[in-house]
Amino acid sequence: MEEAKGVVKHVLLAKFKDDLSPEKIVELIISYANLVNLIEPMKAFQWGTDVSAENLHQGFSHVFESTFESVEGVAEYVAHAAHVEFLNLFMPALDKVVIIDYKPTFVKL
Amino acid sequence: MEEAKGVVKHVLLAKFKDDLSPEKIVELIISYANLVNLIEPMKAFQWGTDVSAENLHQGFSHVFESTFESVEGVAEYVAHAAHVEFLNLFMPALDKVVIIDYKPTFVKL
Repeated sequence: MEEAKGVVKHVLLAKFKDDLSPEKIVELIISYANLVNLIEPMKAFQWGTDVSAENLHQGFSHVFESTFESVEGVAEYVAHAAHVEFLNLFMPALDKVVIIDYKPTFVKL
Repeated sequence: MEEAKGVVKHVLLAKFKDDLSPEKIVELIISYANLVNLIEPMKAFQWGTDVSAENLHQGFSHVFESTFESVEGVAEYVAHAAHVEFLNLFMPALDKVVIIDYKPTFVKL
Protein backbone atom coordinates (compact mmCIF):
# COMPACT_ATOMS: atom_id res chain seq x y z
CA MET A 1 0.00 0.00 0.00
CA GLU A 2 1.24 3.49 -0.81
CA GLU A 3 -0.01 6.80 0.56
CA ALA A 4 -0.12 9.57 -2.03
CA LYS A 5 2.29 12.24 -0.79
CA GLY A 6 0.18 14.91 0.85
CA VAL A 7 -2.80 14.50 -1.47
CA VAL A 8 -6.15 15.06 0.23
CA LYS A 9 -9.49 14.02 -1.25
CA HIS A 10 -12.44 16.18 -0.17
CA VAL A 11 -15.66 14.19 -0.57
CA LEU A 12 -19.11 15.74 -0.29
CA LEU A 13 -22.30 13.69 -0.44
CA ALA A 14 -25.48 15.68 -0.95
CA LYS A 15 -29.20 15.28 -1.06
CA PHE A 16 -30.85 18.36 -2.53
CA LYS A 17 -34.15 19.60 -1.14
CA ASP A 18 -37.17 18.10 -2.91
CA ASP A 19 -38.57 21.45 -4.00
CA LEU A 20 -35.42 22.45 -5.90
CA SER A 21 -35.83 22.59 -9.67
CA PRO A 22 -33.46 20.54 -11.88
CA GLU A 23 -32.28 23.83 -13.42
CA LYS A 24 -31.34 25.22 -9.99
CA ILE A 25 -29.44 22.02 -9.18
CA VAL A 26 -27.47 22.26 -12.45
CA GLU A 27 -26.71 25.90 -11.68
CA LEU A 28 -25.33 24.97 -8.26
CA ILE A 29 -23.22 22.15 -9.72
CA ILE A 30 -21.74 24.54 -12.31
CA SER A 31 -20.92 27.01 -9.52
CA TYR A 32 -19.26 24.22 -7.53
CA ALA A 33 -17.24 23.09 -10.57
CA ASN A 34 -16.16 26.66 -11.26
CA LEU A 35 -14.39 26.87 -7.89
CA VAL A 36 -11.55 24.85 -9.45
CA ASN A 37 -10.83 27.90 -11.65
CA LEU A 38 -10.96 30.33 -8.75
CA ILE A 39 -9.18 28.61 -5.87
CA GLU A 40 -5.55 27.70 -6.57
CA PRO A 41 -5.12 24.82 -4.07
CA MET A 42 -8.19 23.03 -5.53
CA LYS A 43 -6.43 20.89 -8.13
CA ALA A 44 -9.24 18.73 -9.51
CA PHE A 45 -12.98 18.25 -9.31
CA GLN A 46 -15.32 15.46 -10.32
CA TRP A 47 -18.95 14.75 -9.58
CA GLY A 48 -21.81 12.43 -10.43
CA THR A 49 -25.22 11.17 -9.41
CA ASP A 50 -26.05 7.97 -7.59
CA VAL A 51 -26.21 4.88 -9.81
CA SER A 52 -25.96 2.33 -6.99
CA ALA A 53 -28.18 -0.74 -6.85
CA GLU A 54 -27.48 -1.79 -3.25
CA ASN A 55 -29.89 0.75 -1.76
CA LEU A 56 -27.42 1.83 0.93
CA HIS A 57 -27.05 5.42 -0.31
CA GLN A 58 -29.18 6.70 2.60
CA GLY A 59 -30.98 9.18 0.36
CA PHE A 60 -27.80 10.87 -0.90
CA SER A 61 -28.11 11.56 -4.63
CA HIS A 62 -24.90 13.40 -5.58
CA VAL A 63 -21.17 12.89 -4.99
CA PHE A 64 -18.62 15.69 -5.37
CA GLU A 65 -14.91 14.98 -5.05
CA SER A 66 -12.22 17.65 -4.99
CA THR A 67 -8.48 17.03 -4.84
CA PHE A 68 -5.96 19.09 -2.86
CA GLU A 69 -2.21 18.78 -2.45
CA SER A 70 -2.28 19.13 1.33
CA VAL A 71 -4.44 19.61 4.41
CA GLU A 72 -3.28 23.26 4.34
CA GLY A 73 -4.66 23.52 0.79
CA VAL A 74 -8.07 22.36 2.01
CA ALA A 75 -7.96 24.94 4.82
CA GLU A 76 -7.14 27.68 2.31
CA TYR A 77 -10.07 26.51 0.14
CA VAL A 78 -12.51 26.40 3.07
CA ALA A 79 -11.63 29.98 4.04
CA HIS A 80 -11.52 31.35 0.45
CA ALA A 81 -14.07 34.08 -0.30
CA ALA A 82 -15.28 32.31 -3.48
CA HIS A 83 -15.92 29.13 -1.48
CA VAL A 84 -17.73 30.98 1.29
CA GLU A 85 -19.92 32.75 -1.28
CA PHE A 86 -20.67 29.40 -2.96
CA LEU A 87 -21.52 27.70 0.35
CA ASN A 88 -24.00 30.44 1.19
CA LEU A 89 -25.97 29.40 -1.91
CA PHE A 90 -25.26 25.67 -1.78
CA MET A 91 -25.85 24.69 1.84
CA PRO A 92 -29.42 26.09 2.09
CA ALA A 93 -30.30 23.97 -0.99
CA LEU A 94 -29.38 20.73 0.79
CA ASP A 95 -31.53 18.38 2.78
CA LYS A 96 -28.57 16.25 3.90
CA VAL A 97 -24.82 16.62 3.59
CA VAL A 98 -21.67 14.75 4.63
CA ILE A 99 -18.22 16.21 4.06
CA ILE A 100 -15.19 14.07 4.75
CA ASP A 101 -11.53 14.55 3.80
CA TYR A 102 -9.00 11.75 3.57
CA LYS A 103 -5.44 11.11 2.46
CA PRO A 104 -5.82 8.17 0.11
CA THR A 105 -3.73 5.07 0.47
CA PHE A 106 -3.73 3.41 -2.93
CA VAL A 107 -3.80 -0.37 -2.96
CA LYS A 108 -4.01 -0.53 -6.76
CA LEU A 109 -4.21 2.33 -9.23
CA MET B 1 -16.80 18.69 -18.61
CA GLU B 2 -16.07 15.12 -19.69
CA GLU B 3 -17.65 11.90 -18.41
CA ALA B 4 -15.19 9.03 -18.04
CA LYS B 5 -16.38 6.32 -20.43
CA GLY B 6 -18.23 3.78 -18.31
CA VAL B 7 -16.06 4.25 -15.21
CA VAL B 8 -17.98 3.88 -11.95
CA LYS B 9 -16.68 5.00 -8.56
CA HIS B 10 -18.01 2.98 -5.62
CA VAL B 11 -17.75 5.08 -2.45
CA LEU B 12 -18.29 3.67 1.03
CA LEU B 13 -18.27 5.84 4.14
CA ALA B 14 -18.01 3.96 7.43
CA LYS B 15 -18.14 4.49 11.13
CA PHE B 16 -16.88 1.42 12.97
CA LYS B 17 -18.52 0.36 16.22
CA ASP B 18 -16.90 1.91 19.29
CA ASP B 19 -16.02 -1.44 20.88
CA LEU B 20 -13.96 -2.60 17.88
CA SER B 21 -10.22 -2.87 18.52
CA PRO B 22 -7.81 -0.99 16.23
CA GLU B 23 -6.31 -4.37 15.25
CA LYS B 24 -9.72 -5.67 14.17
CA ILE B 25 -10.30 -2.52 12.10
CA VAL B 26 -6.94 -2.95 10.35
CA GLU B 27 -7.78 -6.60 9.68
CA LEU B 28 -11.08 -5.60 8.06
CA ILE B 29 -9.39 -2.92 5.93
CA ILE B 30 -6.81 -5.46 4.70
CA SER B 31 -9.63 -7.86 3.81
CA TYR B 32 -11.40 -5.06 1.92
CA ALA B 33 -8.21 -4.13 0.06
CA ASN B 34 -7.58 -7.76 -0.84
CA LEU B 35 -10.85 -7.90 -2.82
CA VAL B 36 -9.05 -6.05 -5.60
CA ASN B 37 -6.92 -9.20 -6.08
CA LEU B 38 -9.91 -11.53 -6.05
CA ILE B 39 -12.61 -9.76 -8.07
CA GLU B 40 -11.67 -9.03 -11.69
CA PRO B 41 -14.00 -6.07 -12.37
CA MET B 42 -12.69 -4.23 -9.28
CA LYS B 43 -9.90 -2.24 -10.94
CA ALA B 44 -8.60 -0.03 -8.14
CA PHE B 45 -9.02 0.60 -4.43
CA GLN B 46 -8.06 3.45 -2.14
CA TRP B 47 -8.97 4.32 1.41
CA GLY B 48 -8.22 6.72 4.22
CA THR B 49 -9.40 8.13 7.52
CA ASP B 50 -11.14 11.44 8.14
CA VAL B 51 -8.83 14.45 8.32
CA SER B 52 -11.53 17.08 7.82
CA ALA B 53 -11.70 20.23 9.90
CA GLU B 54 -15.21 21.42 8.94
CA ASN B 55 -16.93 18.99 11.34
CA LEU B 56 -19.51 17.93 8.76
CA HIS B 57 -18.38 14.28 8.60
CA GLN B 58 -21.48 13.18 10.56
CA GLY B 59 -19.44 10.69 12.59
CA PHE B 60 -18.03 8.86 9.56
CA SER B 61 -14.36 8.03 10.12
CA HIS B 62 -13.27 6.03 7.05
CA VAL B 63 -13.62 6.43 3.28
CA PHE B 64 -13.19 3.52 0.85
CA GLU B 65 -13.26 4.09 -2.89
CA SER B 66 -13.25 1.33 -5.49
CA THR B 67 -13.16 1.80 -9.26
CA PHE B 68 -15.04 -0.28 -11.81
CA GLU B 69 -15.22 -0.11 -15.60
CA SER B 70 -19.01 -0.32 -15.74
CA VAL B 71 -22.24 -0.60 -13.76
CA GLU B 72 -22.23 -4.29 -14.78
CA GLY B 73 -18.80 -4.62 -13.17
CA VAL B 74 -20.18 -3.30 -9.89
CA ALA B 75 -23.07 -5.77 -10.09
CA GLU B 76 -20.61 -8.63 -10.64
CA TYR B 77 -18.58 -7.42 -7.62
CA VAL B 78 -21.66 -7.11 -5.39
CA ALA B 79 -22.70 -10.69 -6.21
CA HIS B 80 -19.17 -12.18 -6.02
CA ALA B 81 -18.68 -14.84 -3.34
CA ALA B 82 -15.51 -13.14 -2.01
CA HIS B 83 -17.44 -9.86 -1.59
CA VAL B 84 -20.39 -11.54 0.10
CA GLU B 85 -18.01 -13.32 2.51
CA PHE B 86 -16.25 -10.01 3.25
CA LEU B 87 -19.55 -8.16 3.81
CA ASN B 88 -20.64 -10.78 6.34
CA LEU B 89 -17.64 -9.76 8.46
CA PHE B 90 -17.58 -6.06 7.61
CA MET B 91 -21.19 -4.94 7.94
CA PRO B 92 -21.70 -6.18 11.54
CA ALA B 93 -18.61 -4.14 12.52
CA LEU B 94 -20.21 -0.88 11.37
CA ASP B 95 -22.23 1.62 13.30
CA LYS B 96 -23.07 3.68 10.21
CA VAL B 97 -22.55 3.16 6.50
CA VAL B 98 -23.33 4.93 3.24
CA ILE B 99 -22.60 3.32 -0.11
CA ILE B 100 -23.02 5.37 -3.26
CA ASP B 101 -21.85 4.71 -6.83
CA TYR B 102 -21.36 7.40 -9.44
CA LYS B 103 -20.03 7.86 -12.95
CA PRO B 104 -17.60 10.73 -12.51
CA THR B 105 -17.74 13.75 -14.72
CA PHE B 106 -14.27 15.29 -14.57
CA VAL B 107 -14.10 19.07 -14.64
CA LYS B 108 -10.32 19.09 -14.18
CA LEU B 109 -7.97 16.14 -13.72
